[in-house]
Amino acid sequence: MPHFESDYNNGAHAAVLRHLIDTNDERTQSYGDDRFSCHARELIREAAAAPEADIYFLAGGTQTNATILDCMLQPFEGVLCCDTAHINVHESGAVEATGHKVIAIPCIEGKLMADDLRRWLQAYHADETAEHMVRPGAVYITFPTELGTLYSLYELQALRAVCDHYALRLYIDGARLAYGLAASPDVTLPTLAQLADAFYIGGTKCGALCGEAVVFPRGDAPSHMLSRIKRHGALLAKSRVVGVQFEALFTDALYFNIGTQAVRQAQRLRQILVSDKGYPTFIDSPTNQQFFIVPNADLDALHRTAGFENWCPVDDDHTAVRFVTSWATTDDEVDELAHAVRSIRAI
Amino acid sequence: MPHFESDYNNGAHAAVLRHLIDTNDERTQSYGDDRFSCHARELIREAAAAPEADIYFLAGGTQTNATILDCMLQPFEGVLCCDTAHINVHESGAVEATGHKVIAIPCIEGKLMADDLRRWLQAYHADETAEHMVRPGAVYITFPTELGTLYSLYELQALRAVCDHYALRLYIDGARLAYGLAASPDVTLPTLAQLADAFYIGGTKCGALCGEAVVFPRGDAPSHMLSRIKRHGALLAKSRVVGVQFEALFTDALYFNIGTQAVRQAQRLRQILVSDKGYPTFIDSPTNQQFFIVPNADLDALHRTAGFENWCPVDDDHTAVRFVTSWATTDDEVDELAHAVRSIRAI
Amino acid sequence: MPHFESDYNNGAHAAVLRHLIDTNDERTQSYGDDRFSCHARELIREAAAAPEADIYFLAGGTQTNATILDCMLQPFEGVLCCDTAHINVHESGAVEATGHKVIAIPCIEGKLMADDLRRWLQAYHADETAEHMVRPGAVYITFPTELGTLYSLYELQALRAVCDHYALRLYIDGARLAYGLAASPDVTLPTLAQLADAFYIGGTKCGALCGEAVVFPRGDAPSHMLSRIKRHGALLAKSRVVGVQFEALFTDALYFNIGTQAVRQAQRLRQILVSDKGYPTFIDSPTNQQFFIVPNADLDALHRTAGFENWCPVDDDHTAVRFVTSWATTDDEVDELAHAVRSIRAI
Amino acid sequence: MPHFESDYNNGAHAAVLRHLIDTNDERTQSYGDDRFSCHARELIREAAAAPEADIYFLAGGTQTNATILDCMLQPFEGVLCCDTAHINVHESGAVEATGHKVIAIPCIEGKLMADDLRRWLQAYHADETAEHMVRPGAVYITFPTELGTLYSLYELQALRAVCDHYALRLYIDGARLAYGLAASPDVTLPTLAQLADAFYIGGTKCGALCGEAVVFPRGDAPSHMLSRIKRHGALLAKSRVVGVQFEALFTDALYFNIGTQAVRQAQRLRQILVSDKGYPTFIDSPTNQQFFIVPNADLDALHRTAGFENWCPVDDDHTAVRFVTSWATTDDEVDELAHAVRSIRAI
Repeated sequence: MPHFESDYNNGAHAAVLRHLIDTNDERTQSYGDDRFSCHARELIREAAAAPEADIYFLAGGTQTNATILDCMLQPFEGVLCCDTAHINVHESGAVEATGHKVIAIPCIEGKLMADDLRRWLQAYHADETAEHMVRPGAVYITFPTELGTLYSLYELQALRAVCDHYALRLYIDGARLAYGLAASPDVTLPTLAQLADAFYIGGTKCGALCGEAVVFPRGDAPSHMLSRIKRHGALLAKSRVVGVQFEALFTDALYFNIGTQAVRQAQRLRQILVSDKGYPTFIDSPTNQQFFIVPNADLDALHRTAGFENWCPVDDDHTAVRFVTSWATTDDEVDELAHAVRSIRAI
Repeated sequence: MPHFESDYNNGAHAAVLRHLIDTNDERTQSYGDDRFSCHARELIREAAAAPEADIYFLAGGTQTNATILDCMLQPFEGVLCCDTAHINVHESGAVEATGHKVIAIPCIEGKLMADDLRRWLQAYHADETAEHMVRPGAVYITFPTELGTLYSLYELQALRAVCDHYALRLYIDGARLAYGLAASPDVTLPTLAQLADAFYIGGTKCGALCGEAVVFPRGDAPSHMLSRIKRHGALLAKSRVVGVQFEALFTDALYFNIGTQAVRQAQRLRQILVSDKGYPTFIDSPTNQQFFIVPNADLDALHRTAGFENWCPVDDDHTAVRFVTSWATTDDEVDELAHAVRSIRAI
Repeated sequence: MPHFESDYNNGAHAAVLRHLIDTNDERTQSYGDDRFSCHARELIREAAAAPEADIYFLAGGTQTNATILDCMLQPFEGVLCCDTAHINVHESGAVEATGHKVIAIPCIEGKLMADDLRRWLQAYHADETAEHMVRPGAVYITFPTELGTLYSLYELQALRAVCDHYALRLYIDGARLAYGLAASPDVTLPTLAQLADAFYIGGTKCGALCGEAVVFPRGDAPSHMLSRIKRHGALLAKSRVVGVQFEALFTDALYFNIGTQAVRQAQRLRQILVSDKGYPTFIDSPTNQQFFIVPNADLDALHRTAGFENWCPVDDDHTAVRFVTSWATTDDEVDELAHAVRSIRAI
Repeated sequence: MPHFESDYNNGAHAAVLRHLIDTNDERTQSYGDDRFSCHARELIREAAAAPEADIYFLAGGTQTNATILDCMLQPFEGVLCCDTAHINVHESGAVEATGHKVIAIPCIEGKLMADDLRRWLQAYHADETAEHMVRPGAVYITFPTELGTLYSLYELQALRAVCDHYALRLYIDGARLAYGLAASPDVTLPTLAQLADAFYIGGTKCGALCGEAVVFPRGDAPSHMLSRIKRHGALLAKSRVVGVQFEALFTDALYFNIGTQAVRQAQRLRQILVSDKGYPTFIDSPTNQQFFIVPNADLDALHRTAGFENWCPVDDDHTAVRFVTSWATTDDEVDELAHAVRSIRAI
């Protein structure tokens, strides 16, 4: 049965694994100073057109968000985001555990729009009691969003302009960055490096066994990052583990190819379920997460043919479901789904 | 040049790496429910003779200490430990970052002795102002210690008795557990499982790319551990990464063999530097960390022949140094050191 | 000019001040054990019909909320409340500073309704990813609310039933409790003691110089409260300062009389501005906070006649304003307002 | 029976109480903007010869230490202090609760000496693993110390020089400042304002009902102090309560007179117990805390004649005891003690 439950149910991309094997016997420095991490940083700086960038390798996404936001915020500051943002919903309060409020703004399809952000900030600054409120210090967005949607270049620029006006830092969670970049018509890694104060390049969901690369594109990371990261329990002694993997991911454009391939499979999947099968999309996502509205009558049969997640009820008779492709999704798996879906149709 | 700087300067043990390769293409559950993690838990329960144990896989040591101690302690409780304890000295305040005081007791050679602990606790409980002090909630020890030394079974039992008397939990940091177990005449993994309320089996320094296995041997982990761990940013989405490695480490006694081999190399190293070369030991360590007192006049030449760390000055003319072996240390490397050291002697 | 900006712009009620004077020279114990605090506890237990209650005296409201909620919650739990709740809006993130998420539910007129709470909890418990979300541990409400409104007995009982069903603790912020009790037709101090797991009786806004009394009506306060409170910096060495004041407030029903008098003045004020002057109410509040919609054209003149706060814009031509009475509001002040308002009318 | 247990077992100094009475009916601003607080700030700036000082009024000492240190430190920094420091021993971990390590240096008689501090810092900066350790950000001392002792001007200047050299901030806890200033031959309030980056002038133990005045003598308090203080639950809505009291304390040199009088009583007390009675001093304190070594055989009789605290056992036959005077200690009380002690002698 083909599996589309998540983009973290495989090991590592073959090229990443091979690089782990090839480098295994070399003795290296630790705590970020190994030569693989150093080279991976150079490769990322080049790919992001950010020659001054400060880059840190951490183990996972929630850890990265909580650690880096805590580093970017003053203790009395909070972080603004969508109500559906990962940090607001699905990180068990990791940001609040570092003492910062997550300030959620109601959003549509997972995207924080510049106008909504500006309106919130205008109201905040107009409020005479603002000093008694949590001061907004940063804006958190995801690219792509938790719902698979993407910001356009124009939308990102508009967010940046609001951040500049209100002296806010812009942080971009790129857990699925490969898939977002592959699907975007106008946003590139250098774009993000130009617009964000910090962002992370997701490894765990994009071909690595584990690991995320945090980028401060202008080289202005807070002081004493090693101490700060270790204080959050996020410093890997054997830092090469992530460094080696990112070296592979940023060699021969692997990271970008991974994204392109998964997005192509996602589009085939959409073709099968929407055009062929006639399920409406629940959210119009161009990336590797696809959301469909399935009649409850079909649900059991569909679950018998492929692994995917029920997302939420839509009405009494329909359920939104999520299918996720990844670097590991094969043509065969999607073909198998196509075949299986046809058999449901036959019922 | 042979390298003895640390036990985390290599990749993974060949068998661990092979298992990562062999399992790479299998699709699995996430967040700890993958079949590799489940099987690794079974293997550890068996090796520890703790069939009821709750077991969690985390990415690194500092993260594990801070997360698990925070789970074990009430918010107003602190943790007692040696003044040289890793959590007191070398974790950038990760425990304090979770709001708990690290209460350090002066110790000799890295070991917290039951009598010193009891004396501290007697004084605390006799103090009329105790309610204004941080309440001790747990005792932290390392096995082996940061200085390579080991607790005897008797010493551990004595600590356990004090903990029982004062209703304290006993937590054992096993970052280098393989090396400790290999060197101990009377402490085994089942012993630790009997005596500790929680401990962790170190992977990063003992053959894995990354990862530590936390064991609550009596199956009495605090409720909602998944949420607690995630809140600390310590939950791996792709949990199999650590699960697969521990499956390999606890197959065919690999974890124990790794320890035995490294300890054997450490003893050869000691033979070379103490018996052959005549450097006194700085600390009498039976494990994979070896500490010697080197005349400053020899120091430069020695650094040209092998990688090791200066530990601390001893007097104006001598420096304590640390050599560390690991699962990756080869006979050739130790031979090379032996040869090189003889050439220093010639000078 | 009469002042209606807030209920904390005076010193203390005459009887409270007198008791501070009368007791000033007596030597007492500290840290809560002084005889005034002990007697004040007895008086509160009696007034609340809660003979087993644990009672603690703290200095201020934000401190009390943050401290007590942190004591009631497990570290990984959050607190549910209205989006307009004081802890969510106006405490500078004090609750998040202790590591807990404030989970805000959209509400009307400051009241968290049992149905909305239940719906939220049903969705949470139905969510397969619930373990990745912040677990709700307590419900926070205010009596009266930040908008002057009151829960009926029925509404409180319905909230209690939801809390019971989902094993949540119910915490009531009574910063203005005297005014709420005076205005409620069916909620009494014993009612609150029966329904809440913990609540606080506000002193600062209800006749005291400073101080709040936290009540755990069933005597089941968490262990080691002295240590917990001190850890939050909330333990008063000279505890008598608050104890003496609460002794006065709960002698001869002073606390209740204070409420009654302020509510009577609030009703006169409402008569003047609504019935006489014709301003609509913005919120229909039965308590000491009154909200009116004032034409912007009148605003300057009105500000010249009395102290009050602009609350928020209503439309381009109208502004909502807040007038607050307190134990210190005199007949003369309200008369003066009535007279002044008539002169605006004349314009 | 005369009471010498503590300096917080009375109400307020008569002049402070009178000022509370006199100002009680005036309506004021809140949250620090009331005219009493503003005037009190001016009086303190004048007394400290620090015309640019930023001054904040908080309710109590532990709260003040935890709040202000957290404001002064970067999140990854800790605070250096004596092992006997109040923040290290008797604040239930309030500093650690804000995420900072308290780094204790062994000291004699409660005083942190510049040489010991320098030695610690030299070792820290020489340590190659320093980035893995908690970075020292501030030095905490008390004036007078917890043991009643005083730093000389020279000692304070030496500490300041070390702080300057290592870019550390110097924070002085002045819980008993009045008594320290009264007893010091060479340290004045302007001295402290010149040497400290921040200090607090204790009210609770020096004549006020409650309240401490935090002084940043160079006017360089961290930004957004109102939000920061409120986030710690330490912002008093009715700020006048402390403002009025400090206005009284700094009118007609009351604060200094309070200190002088208490120190005079302490010296009489010492005369009685040391010179007359023959008890050795346990610590040679020039301030309002006096420590004597009492034969255990006398202890019961002594406890029947006066209130005081057993401090610690000295040997099997002797106990160190503490007698504390305050602004409230009268000639009669000391006379009564003198008389009572004579009767013990008679036994």
